[in-house]
Amino acid sequence: MRLLLLSNSTAPGHRYLEHATEEIAALLDGARSLLFVPYALADHAGYTAQVATALAPLGVTVTGAHTASEPAAAVREAEAVFVGGGNSFRLLKALHEHGLVPAIRERVAAGDLPYLGSSAGTNMACPTLRTTNDMPIVQPPAFAALDLVPFQINPHYLDAKPDTAHMGESRAERLEQFLEENDVPVVGLREGTWLRREGERLTLGGIAAGGLLFRRGLAPEELTSGADLSDLLRGDYRFDVG
Amino acid sequence: MRLLLLSNSTAPGHRYLEHATEEIAALLDGARSLLFVPYALADHAGYTAQVATALAPLGVTVTGAHTASEPAAAVREAEAVFVGGGNSFRLLKALHEHGLVPAIRERVAAGDLPYLGSSAGTNMACPTLRTTNDMPIVQPPAFAALDLVPFQINPHYLDAKPDTAHMGESRAERLEQFLEENDVPVVGLREGTWLRREGERLTLGGIAAGGLLFRRGLAPEELTSGADLSDLLRGDYRFDVG
Repeated sequence: MRLLLLSNSTAPGHRYLEHATEEIAALLDGARSLLFVPYALADHAGYTAQVATALAPLGVTVTGAHTASEPAAAVREAEAVFVGGGNSFRLLKALHEHGLVPAIRERVAAGDLPYLGSSAGTNMACPTLRTTNDMPIVQPPAFAALDLVPFQINPHYLDAKPDTAHMGESRAERLEQFLEENDVPVVGLREGTWLRREGERLTLGGIAAGGLLFRRGLAPEELTSGADLSDLLRGDYRFDVG
Repeated sequence: MRLLLLSNSTAPGHRYLEHATEEIAALLDGARSLLFVPYALADHAGYTAQVATALAPLGVTVTGAHTASEPAAAVREAEAVFVGGGNSFRLLKALHEHGLVPAIRERVAAGDLPYLGSSAGTNMACPTLRTTNDMPIVQPPAFAALDLVPFQINPHYLDAKPDTAHMGESRAERLEQFLEENDVPVVGLREGTWLRREGERLTLGGIAAGGLLFRRGLAPEELTSGADLSDLLRGDYRFDVG
């Protein structure tokens, strides 16, 4: 299985996807075409054009899944797949409606299709939607996602409270609430970082700030860029054990 | 129908619920007992004790719904109900599981039971969960909520992006995504504000900053404290029209 799961698609001072160009090139490994899944945003054509422009320097031709008469068939023929960010509830609803959850999972899990995700596309690689930051603007038929890793990821991980006068929960408090209900580790990926899976090896990459590992009953653990997180692929985790 | 829907339960420099004491007293209107619905947090007993302490100066005795053998029966006997904040997905799941959605809705809609909500409890008064800020830590059987007002509310409304280096969406951007999929107005309630419904009259209260009204195809409209929003109760709104 080959995955590249980006916290975010755009880093400050960089063009779209530019901060991760080398990693993306390594994932694609010479593939000349890529299927883009644009459903997290409303403007599928505009979003696909943006991705095509960003990946053109890598010599990759980009096709939007929305242009296929049967998107699941397009997945079966793809050389690589990229699930882009936006609203993860809207994205997961569309994946379910188009039969893309089994179609993508089957080929990626078989090691037959490299998977690139950013933000909401990174959420999709987890067992469920439960650690997204997004607003539930539509109701997906289920929270079950692609299950390409057995733990949860929180992209765009943010340390501080948004504003000192703001009385809502911090990100860490939200993830502690997740752990009250689920005995499943969560990797909080700070902006500019990513997870790379190659078979049974999982590593954290990107900027030095790295991420944080949240586990039930333990204090959050700092993860530095380059950390080997392969142990997380071998755990036995349980949802809904609040 | 008598509702008091608070953006937040605690204001900076004030004790829990203190900033809204006069409004709460007006809503309760001499009621001597209140049923508290604590399911948004994990510690039901501790949360209920906190509410009992906060409301003691008003001469109100507080009972937690979790102590009732049948919470829906407790609703049928209550003088007033308060649905507290926390995680709105956990809260809505519990409301559905305990049969509290029809039980609360029936008596409140009949004008028979005053309803106090804060944060997640304010989200519950809307037709759906779709404009919550919370993380979907558990999966409720449906997003349908109490439907005590026909529009949506976004509590803890925040103007700024959390952090200039943060690449996630701003609150306004999230609500615009909601409007892409739903033709339903959203009142963003800034911290320290609330909505008060008395029959067919709806007003915005609390600190001067007030709130913002988001409607499909229109620029967000500033709402000042004291504004009469009764027109929002009479609209014909449609979900899932993306």
